[in-house]
Amino acid sequence: MTLENIARQTHQAAQLLALLPSQERDIALLSMAEALEMSAPEILAANLTDCQVAQAEGITESLYNRLKLTETKLKEAIAGVRNLVKLEDPLGSVQIYRELDENLLLKRITCPLGVIGVIFEARPDALIQITSLGIKSGNGVILKGGKEAIRSNQILMEVIHRGLATSKVNPQALSLLTTREEINALLKLDKYVDLIIPRGSNELVRYIQENTRIPVLGHADGICHLYIDKEADAEKAVSIAVDSKTQYPSACNTIETLLVHIAIAPQILPLLAQALQAKGVELRGDEITRQFLDIKPATEEDWETEYGQLILSIKVVDSLETAMEHIRTYGSKHTEAIITENPLTALTFCNQVDAAGVFHNCSTRFADGFRYGFGAEVGISTHKLPPRGPVGLEGLVTYKYQLLGDGHIVATYTGEGAKAFKHLDLNYEDALLR
Amino acid sequence: MTLENIARQTHQAAQLLALLPSQERDIALLSMAEALEMSAPEILAANLTDCQVAQAEGITESLYNRLKLTETKLKEAIAGVRNLVKLEDPLGSVQIYRELDENLLLKRITCPLGVIGVIFEARPDALIQITSLGIKSGNGVILKGGKEAIRSNQILMEVIHRGLATSKVNPQALSLLTTREEINALLKLDKYVDLIIPRGSNELVRYIQENTRIPVLGHADGICHLYIDKEADAEKAVSIAVDSKTQYPSACNTIETLLVHIAIAPQILPLLAQALQAKGVELRGDEITRQFLDIKPATEEDWETEYGQLILSIKVVDSLETAMEHIRTYGSKHTEAIITENPLTALTFCNQVDAAGVFHNCSTRFADGFRYGFGAEVGISTHKLPPRGPVGLEGLVTYKYQLLGDGHIVATYTGEGAKAFKHLDLNYEDALLR
Repeated sequence: MTLENIARQTHQAAQLLALLPSQERDIALLSMAEALEMSAPEILAANLTDCQVAQAEGITESLYNRLKLTETKLKEAIAGVRNLVKLEDPLGSVQIYRELDENLLLKRITCPLGVIGVIFEARPDALIQITSLGIKSGNGVILKGGKEAIRSNQILMEVIHRGLATSKVNPQALSLLTTREEINALLKLDKYVDLIIPRGSNELVRYIQENTRIPVLGHADGICHLYIDKEADAEKAVSIAVDSKTQYPSACNTIETLLVHIAIAPQILPLLAQALQAKGVELRGDEITRQFLDIKPATEEDWETEYGQLILSIKVVDSLETAMEHIRTYGSKHTEAIITENPLTALTFCNQVDAAGVFHNCSTRFADGFRYGFGAEVGISTHKLPPRGPVGLEGLVTYKYQLLGDGHIVATYTGEGAKAFKHLDLNYEDALLR
Repeated sequence: MTLENIARQTHQAAQLLALLPSQERDIALLSMAEALEMSAPEILAANLTDCQVAQAEGITESLYNRLKLTETKLKEAIAGVRNLVKLEDPLGSVQIYRELDENLLLKRITCPLGVIGVIFEARPDALIQITSLGIKSGNGVILKGGKEAIRSNQILMEVIHRGLATSKVNPQALSLLTTREEINALLKLDKYVDLIIPRGSNELVRYIQENTRIPVLGHADGICHLYIDKEADAEKAVSIAVDSKTQYPSACNTIETLLVHIAIAPQILPLLAQALQAKGVELRGDEITRQFLDIKPATEEDWETEYGQLILSIKVVDSLETAMEHIRTYGSKHTEAIITENPLTALTFCNQVDAAGVFHNCSTRFADGFRYGFGAEVGISTHKLPPRGPVGLEGLVTYKYQLLGDGHIVATYTGEGAKAFKHLDLNYEDALLR
């Protein structure tokens, strides 16, 4: 079957999925979870083969760790599917309910996007997460996984389809692509695919952003900063710096650069260096920093680099303004944090810094859909336009305007003797009871 | 001054504008309105010269009508500025206010996009509308108007800058470009420009969409349909068809094709033809339609054409499904309407048709920000992702997440003995009072 046919088929199945009530979509999720549980041994065996082949081909350790589906990881992924059932239905939510005039009612109501194209690298558990998010949000999903995980992904999709077969969801709403060539073909299918979610390296994301007209959810770089103000509490500053850098070094919400106010630098730099180096962090500093610390110099390239590992650059600044100017120049609008006990300084920072997240006296690592309480996360966006920051199910839905009249025409409301609109917002729940 | 310098300057002024309280932005709007009122004769004189030059160069009538700034049009535009003052501030609105844990507060708060680039054709009143929307929403604006309107635009910008000079808004937040070459340069300035709004022909919009990485608000084609179901009320059907086609033929929410159920075709087609032809509409029909009406044949090209004038194609369909299939194939996801007295049929249509607007028993011409009660309209989007449909001030704002802690780190909430999040939604108004 050609990719275009697969896409058309997914699109058609998605249109039917969109019409299913919340309860049927939740039942499908539960069937899916059960099928995955029952077939766990089969899934783990396929993954083992993938892992063995990948090792024989000399896969990197970090890629291997993502590819490897342990029993725990699988259990967690299945628990994630069950958790989705508990989340509120993102569809059919009435955002505007307005009487434009007598018997002319405007409703803005959430609905699915249609078909989501997801391109992900090695992690097979991502397949479980993405397909279940698709079902919950009433969207079809076309997946393209990494070639290392091909056996894992195929068995997972087979099992999920088997689970859906007993539900009202047409399994064709979920499709799996397996060859690399199909990525470029997928990126051209703007007729059938409404959103692309790339999950993988910055290079993958950038390539996709530059090669498709379909909207892309996500971000390439995550260059986050922690600014330690002159009125910072030293203990909080050190603890937050360590957490922001070392809690998960390859995450996008990890900091790459510390900005330290010169008035607090002599006191705090040694404390920071001690705590960070104890965690194995390599430090690089600008000239002033190196007057206090015996570390490598940081170059222009350092300010622009997302290390993704235990390296941290440090710059001493003479003011809040200089810190914000550095962030403006090098930040990727992901998450930026300030440590200060002065509430006015914190407010200035939070108001003026342009980023999806502006944090005061807490770790940048909190920038995450689960921690924000969104239940499920489809990605983090550094775009200026919404959805911005960690995106939950809301990133997978859109809305439409329904206008219900009784023969109303615009001529009545135009020109000489035009009738005026009422524009009266009604309470939707009350209206349902009438 | 180079365009890049203009953009940087606008960006900087916009950052300060973003920090002004609502009241100061409203005062600036009032100063702007007053200055425009005081300089009305000067503005109308400049426009007269533009019109004379354009006429000498053989401008089309429709372009001339858009270029011509009458006293009434100017007054209406100024009234529009004053109306904006009455609209709610789109900035600083708290959308999420959640306690993640004790003393760890998450706020999602609306903020400006930054700088909006607006490319518009002949209409000088659009300049007044766009600059005032920019001020209200805290955004800088870089405008590029049509060359026909160059004198009108320059005097308008001069007067608006004069008005702002007495306010707290830095006039540099609003810039005017005057040469055609600058369009392409503007489309490349993704460092300083956050959104492009093209206002003009479909060709202009399509060109811009295909030549920039900056998000574009708006739409190219508007191919809207009216489906007259077998259970339609004939009187409503005829009146709504006439309104949807003739009330303003060049508008994007005007219908291009009538779809008529075969069971009602013999009865309703003659009535439709009579009413539409009386309004000067040229009809083109498919084979079945032409068995009832003596009109030109409609070809495949007709189904794909946005006429923008008094031409309407008619197709007879054998079912609701066939009508929806036609809309799926040829519609531009703008506005689609059904006429029927059967509520279930209407519901099926509204649920299944994928468009920004799905209308029942009313004219497609209602698809408009003012009629929806948004007060001001920045454009109509046919994208699937929000903002979709008529976009009010909400299209000019985004949001950011503020996280306010007291030394909180993620390690506390991870791994063995992880602390659980509270995720408790608080009432922001209540919290302000505490």
